[in-house]
Amino acid sequence: MIPQPLQDLIRKLGRLPGFGPRSAQRAALHLLTHKNDLQELVQQMVSVSEALKSCQACGNLSLTDTCEICTSEKRSPNLICVVEDVADLWAIERSGAFRGHYHVLGGLLSALDGIGPQDLRIPNLLSRVEVLGAETEVVLALSASVEGQTTSHYIAQKLRPLGVRVTALAKGLPMGADVDYMDDGTLSLALQGRAQI
Amino acid sequence: MIPQPLQDLIRKLGRLPGFGPRSAQRAALHLLTHKNDLQELVQQMVSVSEALKSCQACGNLSLTDTCEICTSEKRSPNLICVVEDVADLWAIERSGAFRGHYHVLGGLLSALDGIGPQDLRIPNLLSRVEVLGAETEVVLALSASVEGQTTSHYIAQKLRPLGVRVTALAKGLPMGADVDYMDDGTLSLALQGRAQI
Repeated sequence: MIPQPLQDLIRKLGRLPGFGPRSAQRAALHLLTHKNDLQELVQQMVSVSEALKSCQACGNLSLTDTCEICTSEKRSPNLICVVEDVADLWAIERSGAFRGHYHVLGGLLSALDGIGPQDLRIPNLLSRVEVLGAETEVVLALSASVEGQTTSHYIAQKLRPLGVRVTALAKGLPMGADVDYMDDGTLSLALQGRAQI
Repeated sequence: MIPQPLQDLIRKLGRLPGFGPRSAQRAALHLLTHKNDLQELVQQMVSVSEALKSCQACGNLSLTDTCEICTSEKRSPNLICVVEDVADLWAIERSGAFRGHYHVLGGLLSALDGIGPQDLRIPNLLSRVEVLGAETEVVLALSASVEGQTTSHYIAQKLRPLGVRVTALAKGLPMGADVDYMDDGTLSLALQGRAQI
């Protein structure tokens, strides 16, 4: 009933993260009835794909070989925040609480998915930190999941011989959280990490 | 922080129905890191836009000038189901309960948005039914909203002089519904439309 090329488009759209089959159908119909939108979207996708590259230092998306953050003089190059992907980098930038450089891993270690250190930008991180020397702090800002914590421990262990300071994001109650509604894992982490006030 | 062409793409994706700013960001990042997906999507969008046209009889999306439904010999041409858009046509086809032809209006009458009969395919519907003659049934399958009901009444009134049978979808409890949880409007429509069993 639905013409084949349209079915293909709906299937493709539906596989994008954040998109389901129903919303893909609605979006495809919208694009077909608003051909200006469709043309603009196609042009933007092509130009983004051509214009953006990976920053050769940190892996951030950039219009230039080295990204704005890595070339900024207002940021400390001896403070490196390690993130899983560019979306996490954006989230930390939005918080406005970090004024150092970044290092985008491009994923997390996962025995299940067969992702090892060589598949991520971990070797680049190690050589980058080696060049910076012992006066460096590496902040591991990875998810509080099994993969995130495994990756954090692996990187921390690899960095230890270099004598740099390695830290990780604090774990505890999120802002505005109600103790009563928190899961046991978070509560026990918040207790372990309790600090004097 | 986010490069301009990427921001433009995220904004454009975020305006599609069923998409929010966060999922647009995730989808854009996915497309940038999976350039094959991006290229395929661009090609599919271009080919869908070129291949699909509006059926000259009913307004359905079609690869040919007249759609599969309008050319099917298994369907009764004297039974016309009037729908708001192609998504509604697909929904009714999925139900498998209708074996006639369709007429896609392309919207609903709306004084608020300034949409009058001339902006929809209502004149086409009237001339189409006139050609078919009095032995025709027109099923108005429009939403049970104010705009849907206004449009139904307008079309019914215009069809009356042609002497055709005009019906509308039944209103009542949806399948599996609990009377206790139904709103007053639905219950009163279900009571008004009660049928002998």
